[in-house]
Amino acid sequence: MHFSIPPLDTAIATALQQKIDQKTKPLGALGQLEQLALQIGRIQRTLTPSLDQPHLLVFAGDHGAAKAGVSAYPQDVTWQMVENFLAGGAAINVFARQNGLQLTVIDAGVAHDFGVRDGLVDAKIAPGTRNYLAEPAMSAAERDAALAKGAELGRGLAAQGCKVLGFGEMGIGNTASASLITHYLTKTPLADCIGRGTGLDDAGLARKHTLLAQAVERAALPADTDAARVLAEFGGFEIAMMAGAMLGAAEKGVLLLIDGFIVTSALLVAARIAPAIRDYCVFCHHSAEPGHLAQLKDLEATALIDLGLRLGEGTGAALAWPLVRAAAAFLNEMASFASAGVSEKS
Amino acid sequence: MHFSIPPLDTAIATALQQKIDQKTKPLGALGQLEQLALQIGRIQRTLTPSLDQPHLLVFAGDHGAAKAGVSAYPQDVTWQMVENFLAGGAAINVFARQNGLQLTVIDAGVAHDFGVRDGLVDAKIAPGTRNYLAEPAMSAAERDAALAKGAELGRGLAAQGCKVLGFGEMGIGNTASASLITHYLTKTPLADCIGRGTGLDDAGLARKHTLLAQAVERAALPADTDAARVLAEFGGFEIAMMAGAMLGAAEKGVLLLIDGFIVTSALLVAARIAPAIRDYCVFCHHSAEPGHLAQLKDLEATALIDLGLRLGEGTGAALAWPLVRAAAAFLNEMASFASAGVSEKS
Repeated sequence: MHFSIPPLDTAIATALQQKIDQKTKPLGALGQLEQLALQIGRIQRTLTPSLDQPHLLVFAGDHGAAKAGVSAYPQDVTWQMVENFLAGGAAINVFARQNGLQLTVIDAGVAHDFGVRDGLVDAKIAPGTRNYLAEPAMSAAERDAALAKGAELGRGLAAQGCKVLGFGEMGIGNTASASLITHYLTKTPLADCIGRGTGLDDAGLARKHTLLAQAVERAALPADTDAARVLAEFGGFEIAMMAGAMLGAAEKGVLLLIDGFIVTSALLVAARIAPAIRDYCVFCHHSAEPGHLAQLKDLEATALIDLGLRLGEGTGAALAWPLVRAAAAFLNEMASFASAGVSEKS
Repeated sequence: MHFSIPPLDTAIATALQQKIDQKTKPLGALGQLEQLALQIGRIQRTLTPSLDQPHLLVFAGDHGAAKAGVSAYPQDVTWQMVENFLAGGAAINVFARQNGLQLTVIDAGVAHDFGVRDGLVDAKIAPGTRNYLAEPAMSAAERDAALAKGAELGRGLAAQGCKVLGFGEMGIGNTASASLITHYLTKTPLADCIGRGTGLDDAGLARKHTLLAQAVERAALPADTDAARVLAEFGGFEIAMMAGAMLGAAEKGVLLLIDGFIVTSALLVAARIAPAIRDYCVFCHHSAEPGHLAQLKDLEATALIDLGLRLGEGTGAALAWPLVRAAAAFLNEMASFASAGVSEKS
């Protein structure tokens, strides 16, 4: 599958930096927000970026391996939480509402029949992946269908005028898939990629370590296995479809709000397919899940906030979104020293 | 001057924690936002807190020592930036507008006549402090007037229904006062309390070190000098009036949004006058100014965001405010496991 993501504009960078430096503030005094303003301006190739129609997509999927005990919660929680999203009662609903993000839930592969519902896109590839402890989580065809469907969603939103796309997920067992993907794609030792997910106790964490080591042994992938193969091997559908949506949206110049550990595992896959995607990303929060650090290092990224969040759903992206808006707002709205009649540094 | 700040409610803490734990999320998965929700509920003694009528007060004042060379900017920038605030063109205007904070500027002691202006409160104690390199920055009477006026402002907003009060400042030279206050009140070596402020170069920074050491020598304060005396000795009026406003607002149960280095120096003074104020504070951002670390340690505080900001004006408070709103919003709006029909951890 080919994605054509343009590198960021370099011609406009100097003019953007000048505009930032002429604002009524000491040079560099807005720290990371200044880098963010520069990035947004370069993505949109303009000195006056707009962040219209911000959307947050929550991709949901089930995992065959969940029943083997990689999560603290029963698999049914995936569809129950999707119902909670549709009813507006989850954390992501609260934060998206507060911060003006339109929320859509994507059923990428939940083991449940939701019927036709407002706010839910039926993009189900299959009712859950297969158990990667026994066999690959999905076929190459299923993976490609998930990537393609995601890309279609991303491009479609861009075509409607969406300039910012945030990502979230729900899928009992999906920190385990993210751990396996992170292990293979960043070459980080497996143990350093595994955490407590939604809250495993010590015994549960030990079991997760054992099971994921078995999965690695079963898959017996060569060291240089490509990202697409790793994705098919360990899933999930929500991760694959997110990667596709990121790629499709970045092709169209959409700014991507990257949430925590699972969303970043999808980005790792996307970045192996089209490395230029990296520069379209805002890394919204630093997850409490330990493998997130290896991901951020691999992507040479620093997160905007670090509040000890480990909830998923895109909550980190929704919470950091006002900071991203602030970066564009200061670039667009602040006065310059000249326009405000303020003396410059002596 | 006496302030009567009630300790936070302990009786409601258990019920609040239960409400937080029954939300549809893994235990503790919202990290620092959960502690914040607990704090807000305890301050307001309710399971359903409201954060109505959030205000941000920007206190401005001039410093006699500014002309001696403790800042990279000329003293006139104080009044010029106040004009910029009143015209809506500064960073704090952009961020307060974006995030729904009502902004008021307080002239606590600017060396300029603004006349009567919309959005500006004339609370001028004097047109700038005296130069603390030669004499105390203000008299005990001036200090007490500033504290009292601030307390009146804080209590007045609370009486109008304001539940959240953020603090910002403008005053060329005021990082120097903040450094001196921090040195005395936290017992941190002076050199560790001094930074580049709005952007001193190496020579300017060396000059600032020299001048502040001279100020300490000139003042010759005993080691156990109380906070009120330190405040009068080094100023400024904006710091004193902010401390008063914090104290007056906390008396009435208002949540305080604490910005960076200078605002926290005012809080240090306030906390010496009435230690219970500490628990009414949200520490919004970690300033790039090195002395902020000593302040946060002294107050046993962790900041919500750390974006390398060093602008002042209350920008860190305005940027972190949506996170504070999010903490109250999840407590008020999220579904519980029971209400949403979601299975709990096995």
